[in-house]
Amino acid sequence: FHTIKDLAVRGAPAIGVTAAYGAFIAARSDEGIIRGCELLVKSRPTAVNLFWALEKMQKIAEELHGQNSDRQIFLGNLLQAAKDIHQQDIQMCQSIGRNGGDFIKEGFGVLTHCNAGSLATSYFGTALAVIYHAHLQGRKFTVFADETRPILQGARLTQWELSQAGVDVVLICDDMAGYAMQQGKINMVIVGADRIASNGDTANKIGTYSLAVLAEKHKIPFYVAAPVSTFDFNITSGKQIPIEERNPGEVRKFGTSQTSKADAKVWNPAFDVTPAELITAIITDKGVIENPSLANIGKLAGANRQC
Amino acid sequence: FHTIKDLAVRGAPAIGVTAAYGAFIAARSDEGIIRGCELLVKSRPTAVNLFWALEKMQKIAEELHGQNSDRQIFLGNLLQAAKDIHQQDIQMCQSIGRNGGDFIKEGFGVLTHCNAGSLATSYFGTALAVIYHAHLQGRKFTVFADETRPILQGARLTQWELSQAGVDVVLICDDMAGYAMQQGKINMVIVGADRIASNGDTANKIGTYSLAVLAEKHKIPFYVAAPVSTFDFNITSGKQIPIEERNPGEVRKFGTSQTSKADAKVWNPAFDVTPAELITAIITDKGVIENPSLANIGKLAGANRQC
Repeated sequence: FHTIKDLAVRGAPAIGVTAAYGAFIAARSDEGIIRGCELLVKSRPTAVNLFWALEKMQKIAEELHGQNSDRQIFLGNLLQAAKDIHQQDIQMCQSIGRNGGDFIKEGFGVLTHCNAGSLATSYFGTALAVIYHAHLQGRKFTVFADETRPILQGARLTQWELSQAGVDVVLICDDMAGYAMQQGKINMVIVGADRIASNGDTANKIGTYSLAVLAEKHKIPFYVAAPVSTFDFNITSGKQIPIEERNPGEVRKFGTSQTSKADAKVWNPAFDVTPAELITAIITDKGVIENPSLANIGKLAGANRQC
Repeated sequence: FHTIKDLAVRGAPAIGVTAAYGAFIAARSDEGIIRGCELLVKSRPTAVNLFWALEKMQKIAEELHGQNSDRQIFLGNLLQAAKDIHQQDIQMCQSIGRNGGDFIKEGFGVLTHCNAGSLATSYFGTALAVIYHAHLQGRKFTVFADETRPILQGARLTQWELSQAGVDVVLICDDMAGYAMQQGKINMVIVGADRIASNGDTANKIGTYSLAVLAEKHKIPFYVAAPVSTFDFNITSGKQIPIEERNPGEVRKFGTSQTSKADAKVWNPAFDVTPAELITAIITDKGVIENPSLANIGKLAGANRQC
């Protein structure tokens, strides 16, 4: 529970995988899987993968209960289910990379925000899977990584993992993105997603919406990369997505450096919602959804809904 | 020189006042005022007040030389000239506050970026003078202060000085501004300026341009507050304003907190240019210029050009 809430594990897909194993651990303990899932479901409010993984685990537990199998077999099957979710996550990353990699052309400047990479998933990530795919195909391009205040995932994670992989990456502050676009340095924006409504409205790390507006102004394509498990078909609009507000201390400090008074009033939303009309395409593990809308999403993701 | 270059003194008007005193100190030393001004002029490339104050001091020095007065009288007059520039700066702040204060209505959310306040000028500031004026008239409103990476002037200075003055101020990260607008929290944006071209294009702290684009998208008025000494009538477009790029170390860390590798590639422009068409009005010490353009600016500021 604390692993997810306090961001030791972060990134929507990784949260899902961790929650699946968490449900198994709860089932094995005195807690029981029902109570365990109740606890886990409260750890983060925005990422839908959490709910998706927990629901899947609960459903499997119920089915196994119905079979009246003994406890060892029950736990063994539950662990296998968590491992399957993990394995699916790896394949999902590979598929997203394959489906989106060709959007990145030779010589491009690619802007990304937060960390939708191997540190947010089991494998190559979502937005960064697309970047890795293009890189592995030998294309040369430059990634501009927003540092992503307040938690600085871009500075701490994205810059690190892309430079480790040999990708040309330039770190910028979040307030430099608009000027970079104005100066012609950016050819596309690509980000991950924490939850996508059935109309395509996308919740992602705070600052994503600003980038989408800036991209629209500069006629730069704006891509979201996410597995179909990120779609929440229970909601028809981004307005229904709850936005987590986190500890004000995250904004008052920069790492260990205090930047403003300890009692400074702060607003600290962790996510924002980008309306579908600002999204050029959603790159999923099952294919690319151009001009995302209820109809377009239904066509592709609806068919893969049970995945 | 180092006082200005290393940002011990910052904010365009304060740089001008400091440079004026600097020119006097140089005149008094073996350096001489000509050499002193040559050095001072190189300290920062973007803020026009620096050049304006130095030109004025040099002109006065030349006039005094022409009069063949003795050294004590020469220095006394030069010091008086620096004091006059300082006094004008105080009056300028008061005038800007008076001219712009009524733009802030009861219950408004006012977004500002960087620090255009009493820590950037001799008195009440430029953008913040407008805020102080509305506050002193008893109106209740909330200021949202962008923390303003990489130097965090908003977190360190604006949040501090406004809360000291009893103004309701909420600190946010730069990437939260767009979401704040989308959520209806912001009724106007007000920023300072480092240099304004004669067509109204405005150079200011990096991130200002992004806010102007976001404000346009949300139909929120975007104000620039600056003295007429900030206009550079030698240039006809913002494209002619040189943009200072500063030390990459500013982006890789803050204070003692390192956020990315010491060799991370970084882009660190200190300013950006907001095109005049995104600016609702420029609030100056001589009056308000609505829909800034070559013609509108010429009408008001041209008449006060010799000030």
